[in-house]
Amino acid sequence: MKKFVNDPKNFVPEMLKGIALANPDTLRYVPEYNLIMRAEGPRDDKVSIVQGSGSGHEPAHVMVVGKGMLDAACPGDVFSAPPMEYVLETTKLLKSDKGVLLLVNNYTGDKMAFEMASELAEAEGITVKTLFINDDVAVQDSLYTIGRRGVAGNFFVMKAVGAAAEAGADLAECARIGEKVNSVTRTMGIALSACTPPAKGEPLFQLGDDEMEVGIGIHGEPGRRREKVTTADGIVDILLDAVVPDLPYSSGDEVALMINGLGGTPVSELYLLYGIAHEKLAAKGISVWRSYVGEYCTSLEMAGASLTLVKVDDEIKQLLTAPAEIAIRVF
Amino acid sequence: MKKFVNDPKNFVPEMLKGIALANPDTLRYVPEYNLIMRAEGPRDDKVSIVQGSGSGHEPAHVMVVGKGMLDAACPGDVFSAPPMEYVLETTKLLKSDKGVLLLVNNYTGDKMAFEMASELAEAEGITVKTLFINDDVAVQDSLYTIGRRGVAGNFFVMKAVGAAAEAGADLAECARIGEKVNSVTRTMGIALSACTPPAKGEPLFQLGDDEMEVGIGIHGEPGRRREKVTTADGIVDILLDAVVPDLPYSSGDEVALMINGLGGTPVSELYLLYGIAHEKLAAKGISVWRSYVGEYCTSLEMAGASLTLVKVDDEIKQLLTAPAEIAIRVF
Repeated sequence: MKKFVNDPKNFVPEMLKGIALANPDTLRYVPEYNLIMRAEGPRDDKVSIVQGSGSGHEPAHVMVVGKGMLDAACPGDVFSAPPMEYVLETTKLLKSDKGVLLLVNNYTGDKMAFEMASELAEAEGITVKTLFINDDVAVQDSLYTIGRRGVAGNFFVMKAVGAAAEAGADLAECARIGEKVNSVTRTMGIALSACTPPAKGEPLFQLGDDEMEVGIGIHGEPGRRREKVTTADGIVDILLDAVVPDLPYSSGDEVALMINGLGGTPVSELYLLYGIAHEKLAAKGISVWRSYVGEYCTSLEMAGASLTLVKVDDEIKQLLTAPAEIAIRVF
Repeated sequence: MKKFVNDPKNFVPEMLKGIALANPDTLRYVPEYNLIMRAEGPRDDKVSIVQGSGSGHEPAHVMVVGKGMLDAACPGDVFSAPPMEYVLETTKLLKSDKGVLLLVNNYTGDKMAFEMASELAEAEGITVKTLFINDDVAVQDSLYTIGRRGVAGNFFVMKAVGAAAEAGADLAECARIGEKVNSVTRTMGIALSACTPPAKGEPLFQLGDDEMEVGIGIHGEPGRRREKVTTADGIVDILLDAVVPDLPYSSGDEVALMINGLGGTPVSELYLLYGIAHEKLAAKGISVWRSYVGEYCTSLEMAGASLTLVKVDDEIKQLLTAPAEIAIRVF
């Protein structure tokens, strides 16, 4: 295993400490609960938006805490749901008169931790809602999931809900917006390589030198099939053929198009895929309203990419373009 | 070779097309000269800032064209200097009454192309200055270089010069600022893996399963030595021991600290390195004024990272924090 790591057991806390040190004015790290939260803490005139998940998907979700996005992120260890106690303590720390909205990708372990924490928080008088994200069209059930998995499309839910909360929306309205965005968002990914969790020290699965996994999960779960690597054109066809008919996205629709890198693929290849997808969508009469190219939800150092479409209307456009400030920035 | 690519010969043009399609309002792609420029073109009341280099280092430089940064980027093929004719045509297209500043990383091929193009452009009545960036402390001469190489620290030169040009600085002032920032910027990198240029189809060099290249160049050029992979703490020590005494950066200094990913290393590991470097600098009395963590100048899908320090004063701080808008963005 070749990684920048000290003791693999400390991989997540050392990363979280780095995030906080890099953003001393805006973020606070609470080591007891693996928690990254906004430095200013919750506000009673604003719904608190919290996302939790396993680590290893950065920048999701610990690097998207900030104004107009999350109020806090509560990660577990690499590819592990956060412990229920951490979710509960996070919910208590983020308590607001307007309530707390917990965003959760649909994996069985995460779902259990968040549902249980949510019940206990309610018993302590905190108003909580939980919203599950399930944008991955690849498979119905999977290694860690009943139903569809939540993957890179969760970015759009976080962004829209974060903007709504910042603008003063109440808990029901934030939940409505989150459900609406999730309902028009679809994703599928392809892996060119496996990934190696630091504590495991070896790849999660094996791919032949000429193979790719079509419909890969972000924890290395199997997708639809394994096949020979083909051209970028062929790969975009595979992804669009899975994603477009699923909603379906139709001629005349406007969409946000995301090409998300899974961790080990350089941004040059992501833009190459983007250009192809943009033109193939145009040929179907589907026009790209806005581009999202880069790493949004990764799987450690996995080489690969996912394609996400969001069908946008005026409300979603406004929420997606509202200002936001997070740890991940160029300048 | 596993990459998202069609015909490897078209890797660069297909990537450039994708960048332009993703940013239709702000960027223009001129296929004849591999050129990405601002959609609005040059302005006679503003120095035009142009950077060229081989491709394969994205987001440098084709993805950092935009307001407050470059006016145009003129890339060659992967790891190849742009042809002299392309540089000349780019300079002519970017002509401004206030002049054109060409930023060039110090590699022999790039230097030749830009110096020759610059002479020919001057002969055609264009006011041009050329500024060479050489922030890499690893080696004095190298595979493609006489003198020190230019690597990720070029981001700070582009940012500062871009801000100065936007604020109306003249050509001499832009050049002064670029030279000043270059003179206080130092970088060194470490590779954990090699990289594979699409047209070559195989890795540029071989690294053992337990080896790292200390002082790697961004085209896979050899560094100072090859040694056994060590802990993240040990790696940060190696990088700081090379970079800090070189300027030197001293107790009481304020610095910008960049941890740059070389393409295949996930951002989680970069933040882990960042946290360690931040604390080790603090222990030396050097305080980090601002963090830069992510991919700025890559080497295709190479796993690895570089560390850059910039000694900042009030002038540099103001230029680095001035607003800018580029293709690489999260929202």
